Amino acid sequence: MTSDAHDPAATSRAQARAARAAARTLAGLDSDARVAVLHRVAQALVDQADVVLAANAEDVAAAAPLVASGKLSASAAARLVLTPGKLATLAAGIRDIAAQPEPIGRTLRHTELADGLDLRQVTSPLGVVLVIFESRPDALPQIAALALRSGNGLLLKGGSEAARSNAVLHGVITDALAPDVPGAAIGLVTSRAAIADLLALDDVIDLVIPRGSNALVRHIQDHTRIPVLGHADGVCHVYVDVAADPAMAARVVRDSKVDYPAACNAMETLLVHRSWHADGRMTTLLGALHDVALHAHPDQTELLGLPPAPALHHEYGDLACTVAVVDDVDAAIAHVHAHGSGHTEAIVTDDAATAQRFLDGVDSACVFHNASTRFADGYRFGLGAEVGISTSRIHARGPVGVGGLLTTRWLLRGHGQTVADTKDGTVAFTHRTLPR
Amino acid sequence: MTSDAHDPAATSRAQARAARAAARTLAGLDSDARVAVLHRVAQALVDQADVVLAANAEDVAAAAPLVASGKLSASAAARLVLTPGKLATLAAGIRDIAAQPEPIGRTLRHTELADGLDLRQVTSPLGVVLVIFESRPDALPQIAALALRSGNGLLLKGGSEAARSNAVLHGVITDALAPDVPGAAIGLVTSRAAIADLLALDDVIDLVIPRGSNALVRHIQDHTRIPVLGHADGVCHVYVDVAADPAMAARVVRDSKVDYPAACNAMETLLVHRSWHADGRMTTLLGALHDVALHAHPDQTELLGLPPAPALHHEYGDLACTVAVVDDVDAAIAHVHAHGSGHTEAIVTDDAATAQRFLDGVDSACVFHNASTRFADGYRFGLGAEVGISTSRIHARGPVGVGGLLTTRWLLRGHGQTVADTKDGTVAFTHRTLPR
Repeated sequence: MTSDAHDPAATSRAQARAARAAARTLAGLDSDARVAVLHRVAQALVDQADVVLAANAEDVAAAAPLVASGKLSASAAARLVLTPGKLATLAAGIRDIAAQPEPIGRTLRHTELADGLDLRQVTSPLGVVLVIFESRPDALPQIAALALRSGNGLLLKGGSEAARSNAVLHGVITDALAPDVPGAAIGLVTSRAAIADLLALDDVIDLVIPRGSNALVRHIQDHTRIPVLGHADGVCHVYVDVAADPAMAARVVRDSKVDYPAACNAMETLLVHRSWHADGRMTTLLGALHDVALHAHPDQTELLGLPPAPALHHEYGDLACTVAVVDDVDAAIAHVHAHGSGHTEAIVTDDAATAQRFLDGVDSACVFHNASTRFADGYRFGLGAEVGISTSRIHARGPVGVGGLLTTRWLLRGHGQTVADTKDGTVAFTHRTLPR
Repeated sequence: MTSDAHDPAATSRAQARAARAAARTLAGLDSDARVAVLHRVAQALVDQADVVLAANAEDVAAAAPLVASGKLSASAAARLVLTPGKLATLAAGIRDIAAQPEPIGRTLRHTELADGLDLRQVTSPLGVVLVIFESRPDALPQIAALALRSGNGLLLKGGSEAARSNAVLHGVITDALAPDVPGAAIGLVTSRAAIADLLALDDVIDLVIPRGSNALVRHIQDHTRIPVLGHADGVCHVYVDVAADPAMAARVVRDSKVDYPAACNAMETLLVHRSWHADGRMTTLLGALHDVALHAHPDQTELLGLPPAPALHHEYGDLACTVAVVDDVDAAIAHVHAHGSGHTEAIVTDDAATAQRFLDGVDSACVFHNASTRFADGYRFGLGAEVGISTSRIHARGPVGVGGLLTTRWLLRGHGQTVADTKDGTVAFTHRTLPR
């Protein structure tokens, strides 16, 4: 635990500890002051657009040969690009996050334990969060804004392709924190090697959020004792019920797959009630996926006349999906539980009872009725932005906004009461719920 | 993934999967039916008290030679003992948990995303929880009741000294689940070797709660990818401020240490404002701890005339504590952050502003003003019972009752809306907060 600058592990520890100390200053500001910080950050992104875009242009130029040599996908290169319009949208998003109700200090539970013994469970910042994200530099200001709003320290590691954009965005944002908040509240991690050092700091870092490939998420889960929030994969299902409207089914199914085929909330498996196959509506439904490579449930290749899917739990991440015929809504639910990833599932039906059965019965982060799976997103859910989407059942589930960056503390106010008093009857528990 | 009964790992997996399936049945019951199950369990504990007490007497008899040979502490042996009175109290506690408001399906957030697109974030059972607890057999029915109330499956591993008591309690409780809920909802794990197999099942088990020694908690954290809820240690502080009432300070300090010295919420370090030392009030205060072995902050042995504490982060778990003089409330807060475990800290003061500074500034699960640290407990907090006390900042913090066994799901109800519609303007986001 030396502060030797030549010891990379010590440097990482110092960076994390500085983020925690700065976060305590940030969290100690009153609400108006923290909101003012966010407005300064938003304004800085607009005011300094030129330097951000210049750095971004260098990243984009450097990416071109990587795309040509196949080392970077064209879609990843496209996600690198920032524009004046994107920066304006980012600034507007940060102002939206600033306008959200104050997240810190909300009372979730208020109980009179005994006469004059008052307990409140209140929301508090989580502490220090490490976020590892790939290519898209717009993620940096969005995540920074969520952390600032919720009084958290942040350590950010972006993709190497966006290194110049991230460095400039980080500088613009941390400059805007002054004078209220030390810039160390948001640390930028620039070397891949530092990640291993940071993952060892379970006494200083409270949460790791990896946003990237399945392999990245698994690797991080396997190499840290710090809690990890995120999703390894998104094998999302749409179930078209016997009572689905054909036009609506076609629309929802198509959007769920085609709107952004590589997204984690895109449909990977289409479950169709057996009746659609029997009466020929299936053909029309699959017509809505005319440009999608269709694969059958491995047991239904003959029934459907399609090549087999590689597995029932399979994320294509592309214009491709699995199709399976099921007997009823219960079979659809069982299929989801057996082969899904607990991310997002939708039912299309006009039958209210069947819809309710699906909404009650499906144990996934997001469960939708007559809506595209693509709505599973922090911005679309009204959270302002998201630090990630979690398929874990603990802490935060689904799209995670400011709420996922909070914990709680229990504050008890008394007049000198002791537990011995409760044993001899001097203090009697009332456990009365009080207004929040 | 065979079901070969001779393969212990397969047996553990089968047990965990059966708990998940049974929990889905349990969670699918309506509230009244789940409450009725709890009342049957409570009644069974009373009705079958004789068989439970007979098994317990065998455990207690078997423990005697272990105590004699020093293999089991006298206090652990004492915690083994069940009595008719304890069983009646347990039954009453289960009825209290049954009387709590329905935990499943509560709306935490309700938003109109767009016209006719309605989003609710609702509470849902976590899934399957593995609880590992030592000696005290009363923990088994308490944890079972919390899991049943919240619709969760449970795998329980108790201490070997309580094996007979646990087996009978488990049988009585699972018999009482019929006919609504399969007994597999609560699995009893009887071999220590099975723990390793269960810790590998991060696809079936959602949370592990170890209740026991620091070493047990650390071992489990190091050997699983499943999230772990609990506390490795409890180094709790009481800060006696310049403006503390001497009689109240003495009472709170004594109760915090002496009421149950081995408890995780017992005071390990007493922080005293420098003025108390200067004006001699310190001597009177320490008189309240006349039967406690006092140790000084290692830098203050001369100042205090006490032997040095082994370390500032040290859990005595006994009639012993560390004493340190600090300059003011900010120094006390800094000491807590540097050397505490984030469990429970208390301030004694009559100065409202100083109290507020401590309550705002201390980043621990429980922060108290003029009350004993010993109040940090699920029953005392009005949670009915606790599955454990968490010093982790994620998911659940402090004493954990039913609330810590819940997750959320996002339910979206629409009329066929797609994300493409939001891009061409057919569907416009409103993000309007609706009543819950």
